[in-house]
Amino acid sequence: MERRSFLQKAGAGLAAGIVASPAVSQQSTPALPDIKWRMASSFPKSIDTLFGAGQLVSKRVGELTSGKFQIQVFAAGELVPGLQVLDAVQSGTVEMGHTASSYYVGKDPTFALGTAIPFGLNARQFDAWWIHGGGEALMNEFYKDYSVLCLPLGNTGAQMGGWYRREIKSVADLKGLKMRIAGLAGEVMIKVGVTPQQIAGGDVYPSLEKGTIDATEFIGPYDDEKLGFYKIAKFYYYPAWWEGNATLNAFVNLKQWESLPGEYKAALQTACSEAHTWMVAREDALNPAALRRLVAAGTQLRPFPRAVLQACHQAARELYQEISNKNAKFKKVYDAMDRFQRDEILWFRVAENGYDNYMASAEANSAMTTKAIGAVENR
Amino acid sequence: MERRSFLQKAGAGLAAGIVASPAVSQQSTPALPDIKWRMASSFPKSIDTLFGAGQLVSKRVGELTSGKFQIQVFAAGELVPGLQVLDAVQSGTVEMGHTASSYYVGKDPTFALGTAIPFGLNARQFDAWWIHGGGEALMNEFYKDYSVLCLPLGNTGAQMGGWYRREIKSVADLKGLKMRIAGLAGEVMIKVGVTPQQIAGGDVYPSLEKGTIDATEFIGPYDDEKLGFYKIAKFYYYPAWWEGNATLNAFVNLKQWESLPGEYKAALQTACSEAHTWMVAREDALNPAALRRLVAAGTQLRPFPRAVLQACHQAARELYQEISNKNAKFKKVYDAMDRFQRDEILWFRVAENGYDNYMASAEANSAMTTKAIGAVENR
Repeated sequence: MERRSFLQKAGAGLAAGIVASPAVSQQSTPALPDIKWRMASSFPKSIDTLFGAGQLVSKRVGELTSGKFQIQVFAAGELVPGLQVLDAVQSGTVEMGHTASSYYVGKDPTFALGTAIPFGLNARQFDAWWIHGGGEALMNEFYKDYSVLCLPLGNTGAQMGGWYRREIKSVADLKGLKMRIAGLAGEVMIKVGVTPQQIAGGDVYPSLEKGTIDATEFIGPYDDEKLGFYKIAKFYYYPAWWEGNATLNAFVNLKQWESLPGEYKAALQTACSEAHTWMVAREDALNPAALRRLVAAGTQLRPFPRAVLQACHQAARELYQEISNKNAKFKKVYDAMDRFQRDEILWFRVAENGYDNYMASAEANSAMTTKAIGAVENR
Repeated sequence: MERRSFLQKAGAGLAAGIVASPAVSQQSTPALPDIKWRMASSFPKSIDTLFGAGQLVSKRVGELTSGKFQIQVFAAGELVPGLQVLDAVQSGTVEMGHTASSYYVGKDPTFALGTAIPFGLNARQFDAWWIHGGGEALMNEFYKDYSVLCLPLGNTGAQMGGWYRREIKSVADLKGLKMRIAGLAGEVMIKVGVTPQQIAGGDVYPSLEKGTIDATEFIGPYDDEKLGFYKIAKFYYYPAWWEGNATLNAFVNLKQWESLPGEYKAALQTACSEAHTWMVAREDALNPAALRRLVAAGTQLRPFPRAVLQACHQAARELYQEISNKNAKFKKVYDAMDRFQRDEILWFRVAENGYDNYMASAEANSAMTTKAIGAVENR
């Protein structure tokens, strides 16, 4: 896509030692058009970290274009149901949407690769893959079949593994567990004995309260706290091995995108990039205090046992093999992402994890953390 | 600053459930002015990941403004020496610069807090602090005394600890070590027995080759490889406990900033934010292959012993106390950053590190990594 193509050119310029200068000529340009777009969000206003990323794009694009390119953001359900945002963008009902690509795995499991897959990239690694690792070109080639262009728009970071009414001490404890979980994670869960449940958003709390389900997952401390699960399920597990990052996605109708002047394309791209970083920073800034409040309210924090992670990891590998055997689109992107991920883990294991792990274990912090959130098992 | 103030308003809007809409009116606006700026970079073109972030800003701002706001980027030494960029921006010799705030600790140690301090925030934590944790307001209050505004413009991620002619097996091995290292890290090094050396860039390689110095540090595999230190110093240590992230900084002359129309301010802010993310993603994408090449060329990868990290950490804490006792500006920002960091470590220790550590240790990756980079001591 255009941005990728620019970056390649920028790279070439760098290699040749060319001094950068704006490419757009200063010849008198025709006045830019007034354009009004609608952005359908998959998120309710109450989940303000996710919904807010779309709002920031709207605000910024307005500022960048003297208010000539206006994007009005609609919460889930205002124009279309939250899980039908892609369809609305594809059909042209709205010009763009803010959603999670992974919501659409029912159409094609390849959609998961635009957000997160079990045991996939972390947030920074996803950005590296998208921007410099070929991810953008691969995914937008796939999205083209749905008449949309994708721009990353927000990330949750590594999520929590959800709320459980009973402890998960071994793989055996997963057998028969009724958990609200969807997508590829649900398919992996089936392989280790879990019975995934599809339950509409509003019914999750009463189902968990009554014990119709044993567990549910959502996002992380700040977002989860609002839903109140801590009142009815004591055990809060980590990490969500199915969402080591979760990239949210702006989908733009391709025809609408192509009709935009270059200035507006650039406005949308830079605004989405800014909001992408803004969102994960907001999650990171808000999660610690929320985690403290949850623990103060009685939540028991638990790491998934290593054996559980290993069993799920093995099941995930089997699933990717099965899907790849019958879906060439998935295989093409997955294989590229997997290669990239192996390289990233090699590198992160050195300086980045080395630094984080020392800081996490440094005595003063360790004592403080243990006091605040209870004993955290060291894996 | 404006961006911060917007974000606060956005937050208020969210809380009140107000539907976002562009704030700029659609009344006919006066034509935007043609403006040409010069950006002095502290980096040479050859260090293309760092220098490239400035180039991307130039390119994007041009695209966003129909080429009316042009920023020409000059490499280190083309207009001003690399370490005098701040002075050039402050005096108005250039309208803006791309540099590392920490280069200017000689003026005031508070400058280090805008880039990195020993045992400070990691890259994502720095963004969270800057955008949502009060960092932007605190630092720009400080920078105001130098007539500049700061926008983060790039990050290296956690750096490598540099190149050593001999192994560092204990704190005792640091005694008398002649190392090229500057800033607050150099002051911490003195406390543990190192003799920091100030050597001009071009003299570092011959000094290390001749043994005039025992060690030097730079950035990470991709950038370090270009300088060729692996040919003359076998041991490559990690992590750089003095740069768990290194935020690069765009400094804009305050008068020039205030003279910009709102559209151009927004263009510069969003372009810097995009390039900020682009840079760390580029480092992350390029470092793995560079690390492999270095190891293939004979580099011995070594983690700093935990006792060394602990001694340096203790020395850093003493240094911050000493500086705080005599510098109220430093104390104000440091105390706020330190509080924020303790919270971040609490949270990252749960889902984020839990996920990264499992992935790093997962069997397949572990075997692959060990083969590629040699046995990595597990701390």
